[in-house]
Amino acid sequence: MNKYSALSKNELQSEIEKLEKRYNGYKEQKLKLDMTRGKPCSQQLDMSTEMLEIPAKELRKAADGTDTFNYGVLDGLPEAKALFAEMLEVDKSEIIIGGNSSLNLMYDAVGRAMSLGILGGTPWSKLDKVRFLCPSPGYDRHFAICELFGIEMVIVDMKPDGPDMDTVEKLVSEDDSIKGIWCVPKYSNPDGITYSDQVVDRMAALKPKAKDFRIFWDNAYCVHHLSDKPDSLKNILAACKSAGNENMVYMFSSTSKISFPGAGISMMAASAENLNSIRKSMTIQTIGHDKINQLRHVKYFKDIDGISAHMKKHADILKPKFDLVLEILETELGGKDIASWNKPNGGYFVSLNTLDNCAKEVEKLSLDAGVVLTKAGATYPYGKDPRDRNIRIAPTMPPAEELKKAIEILCISVQLVSAKKMLAAM
Amino acid sequence: MNKYSALSKNELQSEIEKLEKRYNGYKEQKLKLDMTRGKPCSQQLDMSTEMLEIPAKELRKAADGTDTFNYGVLDGLPEAKALFAEMLEVDKSEIIIGGNSSLNLMYDAVGRAMSLGILGGTPWSKLDKVRFLCPSPGYDRHFAICELFGIEMVIVDMKPDGPDMDTVEKLVSEDDSIKGIWCVPKYSNPDGITYSDQVVDRMAALKPKAKDFRIFWDNAYCVHHLSDKPDSLKNILAACKSAGNENMVYMFSSTSKISFPGAGISMMAASAENLNSIRKSMTIQTIGHDKINQLRHVKYFKDIDGISAHMKKHADILKPKFDLVLEILETELGGKDIASWNKPNGGYFVSLNTLDNCAKEVEKLSLDAGVVLTKAGATYPYGKDPRDRNIRIAPTMPPAEELKKAIEILCISVQLVSAKKMLAAM
Repeated sequence: MNKYSALSKNELQSEIEKLEKRYNGYKEQKLKLDMTRGKPCSQQLDMSTEMLEIPAKELRKAADGTDTFNYGVLDGLPEAKALFAEMLEVDKSEIIIGGNSSLNLMYDAVGRAMSLGILGGTPWSKLDKVRFLCPSPGYDRHFAICELFGIEMVIVDMKPDGPDMDTVEKLVSEDDSIKGIWCVPKYSNPDGITYSDQVVDRMAALKPKAKDFRIFWDNAYCVHHLSDKPDSLKNILAACKSAGNENMVYMFSSTSKISFPGAGISMMAASAENLNSIRKSMTIQTIGHDKINQLRHVKYFKDIDGISAHMKKHADILKPKFDLVLEILETELGGKDIASWNKPNGGYFVSLNTLDNCAKEVEKLSLDAGVVLTKAGATYPYGKDPRDRNIRIAPTMPPAEELKKAIEILCISVQLVSAKKMLAAM
Repeated sequence: MNKYSALSKNELQSEIEKLEKRYNGYKEQKLKLDMTRGKPCSQQLDMSTEMLEIPAKELRKAADGTDTFNYGVLDGLPEAKALFAEMLEVDKSEIIIGGNSSLNLMYDAVGRAMSLGILGGTPWSKLDKVRFLCPSPGYDRHFAICELFGIEMVIVDMKPDGPDMDTVEKLVSEDDSIKGIWCVPKYSNPDGITYSDQVVDRMAALKPKAKDFRIFWDNAYCVHHLSDKPDSLKNILAACKSAGNENMVYMFSSTSKISFPGAGISMMAASAENLNSIRKSMTIQTIGHDKINQLRHVKYFKDIDGISAHMKKHADILKPKFDLVLEILETELGGKDIASWNKPNGGYFVSLNTLDNCAKEVEKLSLDAGVVLTKAGATYPYGKDPRDRNIRIAPTMPPAEELKKAIEILCISVQLVSAKKMLAAM
């Protein structure tokens, strides 16, 4: 297929006619296809059912004799810490086990910094201005936490190997109102990018002007590979230690997309000094999280190999869906020079960039044909994509047949919007 | 037995000798008895084991078709709301289901008020002074939340039918820095007092100077009766509505002492306007709480009668322990005019008041004989009991034989400390 830019006015018009015919064909089907969120599909969830069949008596006593049915154990059972420390490649003294949501751990971390400050620093709520760097496109729920707490967000561009570190280094070292940066360092949401070793090293070696600057390292997709040759991510906590910056990073993860979204285990890893400080307010917040569910996860997965084997089964279900999406994107949009997209080795998304100023129109056109996409702009702070071009595709939840239709409708919409824009500009 | 105050010097000396003999007899046993917290005993926890044996397939689909294994449902499954709305005697539109900890819901409520304010009010962190009324003795974990957030605590005396409402009314109506009051209105911690209808009505009719004043109504022991003639508590939300004050109360409860401490369900009830506002930040904090555990609780208890029947079984285990404590207190301390205590119809504690300025010494003496009590003073803000006399007895956890020894040691300690003080004053 030729580039759209090489088409004549007539060729574009005829292209639009063909596309509208296909579009209307879909529209008549009155489809209702929801592509909004990165949710596992039903078949993936089936896989963990066995975890809920573990006999209750096996869930009663932790290895150290703790009665999991009673109160106590603020920051996680030792065996849960051991298992997930291995997953995050940290020491078991460097991890805290939370409730069912790592988002809640991140919200709490920001909330604590606002009300109480970090390691003796001024509570952020007492400062005139608090700013966070937001590599974008990124995860809308991170940005929503900042917006709720009135933290100003500064967009940093994503490059193929991670955030634009020149900008990050400059801003962090010059401006003490910059207190944090949001990172999804592996199979990033939505780009599927894994930070290179150089990016991790530069991140770990930052010299922030604000002593209470923290890297919010949301390693949500640490074991969520789609390929037999998974990306590898350098350990940020180790890198921070090497750089003499061990207090600079908060790592987060969860089993939401390993076991059960909403009924999994979350975790936070950081330096001993950070965790000691966090435990001091955590012990005011709760007596402890759900130990029965912690033990359930440990008994089911047993060790990191158990998690890896489980993740292979997830990949077996997800890989064909990602392949299908990429295949349709290539077929419909390849060579036309009107869109670009990533080919992730893991994670939950395919990130599609249209021509500038097209994403919202594409979203609307798709919606009119029954496909609900993640809101265009959602991958940017304040929901405003400055180039209005990024569309997050979440291929995991719909059955293949629905997915195929949804992506075709999306692609037709991209072509229609692009062609019409070009025609209008002729 | 005569009152201690009627004893002569010689009689007191001989009494002390006898007590020291008994005390040393216990001390030689090198006991280690932990009476610190209101934890259910192992036998109580056994009772809920069946809940964990419900087949996984019965936990998958909520009544409205929601897949409990996947993301979603911010504020609770409808059937969980219905069940616990009945328990709290509110409408199902007036309840939010939380995670495993009502303490965390209370912490979040205070945290939100600090950072974001309540219904458009100034965030409390921006104010010069924020104060809470603390009916005391009360629950140390409530006071700890205030202390963490720098909220100044004002002691209000407890009367036999609830907080001293003359003081509450005066302070709340005159001082707009008073933003809240902590209440455990039924079988209060530690006094076992249930607020009278008059107290509830006066509470609901408060005319706070601060528009964002809230009653933190921790109904932790709402169904935790020990007697066939349980106390009844007037519904505060209904009373607030009648008084035109429906936004003034936040109600909290949980199943921690119904099903599993640490693996139960928490809940918050309030007016629609309060809940709508809370949901707006809750949706930033989490995608939703553990729906599988919600459905597990609903399937197990079925309805309020299921909860009541379950609570009867708890009472069958706990009543003999409370009776044992009360019997020993009467035998050891009755008629001596050196201590007073409550006889609760429910809840988890017996509250013992010694003579003034004796509680800390009693705590220390008991500890030296192997009995760890809740820290004297813990039932007051900042851990400071102004009269140093309140000791919280938590009879639920130890087996009867241990409990007997622990309470005997406590009673011997009370007598020893009192007698020695009186002797020294002669």
